[in-house]
Amino acid sequence: MGKVIQVAEAAKAAKSAMNRLNTIEKNRILEAMAAGLLSHTEEIMKQNALDVDAAREKGRTPALIDRLALDKKRIQAMAQGLRDVAELPDPIGEIIHATKRPNGLLIAKQRVPMGVIGIIYEARPNVTADAVGLCLKTSNAVVLKGGSEAIHSNTAIADILIRAGEAAGMPKGAVGLITDTSREAVAEMMKLNDLIDVLIPRGGGGLIRSVVQNATIPVIQTGVGNCHIYVDKTADLDMAVSITVNAKTSRPAVCNAAESLLVHREVAAEFLPKVFRALKDKGVEIRGDEMCRKYGAAAAAPEDYDTEYLDYIISVKVVDDVDAAIEHINLHGTGHSEAIVTNDYRNAERFKADVDAAAVYVNASTRFTDGFEFGYGAEIGISTQKLHARGPMGLAELTTTKYVIDGDGQIR
Amino acid sequence: MGKVIQVAEAAKAAKSAMNRLNTIEKNRILEAMAAGLLSHTEEIMKQNALDVDAAREKGRTPALIDRLALDKKRIQAMAQGLRDVAELPDPIGEIIHATKRPNGLLIAKQRVPMGVIGIIYEARPNVTADAVGLCLKTSNAVVLKGGSEAIHSNTAIADILIRAGEAAGMPKGAVGLITDTSREAVAEMMKLNDLIDVLIPRGGGGLIRSVVQNATIPVIQTGVGNCHIYVDKTADLDMAVSITVNAKTSRPAVCNAAESLLVHREVAAEFLPKVFRALKDKGVEIRGDEMCRKYGAAAAAPEDYDTEYLDYIISVKVVDDVDAAIEHINLHGTGHSEAIVTNDYRNAERFKADVDAAAVYVNASTRFTDGFEFGYGAEIGISTQKLHARGPMGLAELTTTKYVIDGDGQIR
Repeated sequence: MGKVIQVAEAAKAAKSAMNRLNTIEKNRILEAMAAGLLSHTEEIMKQNALDVDAAREKGRTPALIDRLALDKKRIQAMAQGLRDVAELPDPIGEIIHATKRPNGLLIAKQRVPMGVIGIIYEARPNVTADAVGLCLKTSNAVVLKGGSEAIHSNTAIADILIRAGEAAGMPKGAVGLITDTSREAVAEMMKLNDLIDVLIPRGGGGLIRSVVQNATIPVIQTGVGNCHIYVDKTADLDMAVSITVNAKTSRPAVCNAAESLLVHREVAAEFLPKVFRALKDKGVEIRGDEMCRKYGAAAAAPEDYDTEYLDYIISVKVVDDVDAAIEHINLHGTGHSEAIVTNDYRNAERFKADVDAAAVYVNASTRFTDGFEFGYGAEIGISTQKLHARGPMGLAELTTTKYVIDGDGQIR
Repeated sequence: MGKVIQVAEAAKAAKSAMNRLNTIEKNRILEAMAAGLLSHTEEIMKQNALDVDAAREKGRTPALIDRLALDKKRIQAMAQGLRDVAELPDPIGEIIHATKRPNGLLIAKQRVPMGVIGIIYEARPNVTADAVGLCLKTSNAVVLKGGSEAIHSNTAIADILIRAGEAAGMPKGAVGLITDTSREAVAEMMKLNDLIDVLIPRGGGGLIRSVVQNATIPVIQTGVGNCHIYVDKTADLDMAVSITVNAKTSRPAVCNAAESLLVHREVAAEFLPKVFRALKDKGVEIRGDEMCRKYGAAAAAPEDYDTEYLDYIISVKVVDDVDAAIEHINLHGTGHSEAIVTNDYRNAERFKADVDAAAVYVNASTRFTDGFEFGYGAEIGISTQKLHARGPMGLAELTTTKYVIDGDGQIR
């Protein structure tokens, strides 16, 4: 814990020792960390109260304060999260494939740790434990840079995790928290290419854009989702209502929630009144084009179609056909999750092939884009970039590979 | 061809059409391009002569002029390269895995094009044809930015490829060359996150560093190799001489050539005279530490151990044991290719596990780190980063994945 360069250098120095831990040793550390959180719940809550009070004094939004505040149940959930990660299979060491070449060289592609992972996040203190668990299980050292709003909480949690982890055999320096909350600290961190192997920003669009724009370290971009539901001419309209309401309202603040609804012109007159009624029943504000306004929508401004509301608001637009829907999505979407509701085979196939996004659904809610729903047992985030990982990232996405080659004197 | 923004926008507009081409159509385009190069050999050579003359006038190095100059044979090789890529299996569309989830959703992970790939390269005009072939086969649109020294050659080659390709069904804009050779053009290109999906710099260390430092688009870093051979105490010394000489001298200008030799102290007195004789026979200049100087090496400066000579020069250092070798390599290496020569099982395993590089060899030359030698049939470059791809990159590394999910009304 401390200054950027110290924390990052200590993490780099811990790489080899982390790489030597076996799964049993890593799981023992995770269990010790979980126990540490549970036995220091009071201490964490006391430090968290300082952050919450400060946020209230500064007049921060209730949403931020909700993300920031910890209670017993949330701390228990953090501990359980570490135990759940301990239960997952360890991806490190797996030989992905191996071939014997004609000259006798045995070339194996093996899964190995990234080395040092930098996590830049905002006001959620649970990310501290979450990121430590996932990085540790994948034998990575981790440099944490949380938001200044959560500094007391993060310091307390990291301190407990480090003490418990080291007592259980975790290499010194393998987990580090940058406690310098200045803007310069994060700017410095993003350019430490010799010390940090990969950066993962976890938070809102502003944070992610800033990291993408300023980092020289490779970044895994996560999380912004301007997700669409397109209701095709042949859609089962009851199914379409159910999927739209679920995608919009089951958890509006998450990135896989739908933000925009596109409706085929030929079913608009029948579908719009139905879906608007269902959405309004859930308290959703509807902003639409001219045709939507006939059925009670407010007027949408052009920027509405580019907005990730993360709230009980939806933009709606009537389109001529599946091609217009695909074009609109590829123009306004963020490459996260997109769904078509249809019974037309060709339109379903066309939508799956032509929509450029991490996850493309036919007749299902966008809300399934999630590491747990996909069966990965964990989630570091949802990648919306195309390099390395795309869509929900599990433990394997925190690893890289190495070619290991056995010879008996081969030269070229 | 033309200004940065025009070329990149045209490439983006071609993405969907590129994505719709099947393998037969793509191979037909590649064959037409190969035929186009062969039937316009004279035209290419005429334009190339302008570049070569200008380079001579500017007093450029013979090495640069050699990379720049095209003759009939080199143009035939470019055409053959396109035909070879046509022969390779097409990775696009492959379902990497698919699972039926408990709720009935069928979640498939499918290999799809990146979209638009930007290639930034230097004076080798053959990269123009090479990059077009690899990107086209993987259904990617490509934006080319070659060095100003090769502008006439690149313009001629790109023009021929585009005309032949479009006549054979290639979408308009799918291949574009930026002919603006200003520094501002490349700076602008590196920040077009909305238009270009990934950047691949191909060239020397300076170019690659500049792209890594300045790009906001995700980059695949390729090619710098400060590769080591470590000769352990139990090495077969004849094998060690053979591997060292091969790794240093079989092609010194490439990134998988060895630049540095580490020798276990206990075999130094026997091994150094042998290997120095063999290296000197090949015209290699030897720069070493105190012990090496006893056997005729020149004195190495500290920076020698961080230098990728790409020439008939090698740095040599005597080390105490395998741990010291690993530590030296992890400090001075560039994460490319590293080799141990040993007959000690534990040291071999330790070296493989602890050296942090794309390819780690036991008892073989580092020169095998190559897409063709690894059996991939093609090579875009050798990645020395940990995200997305590490080591030799074949066609699959020019693709990304997409989750395609079939449902029947699932909500969460």
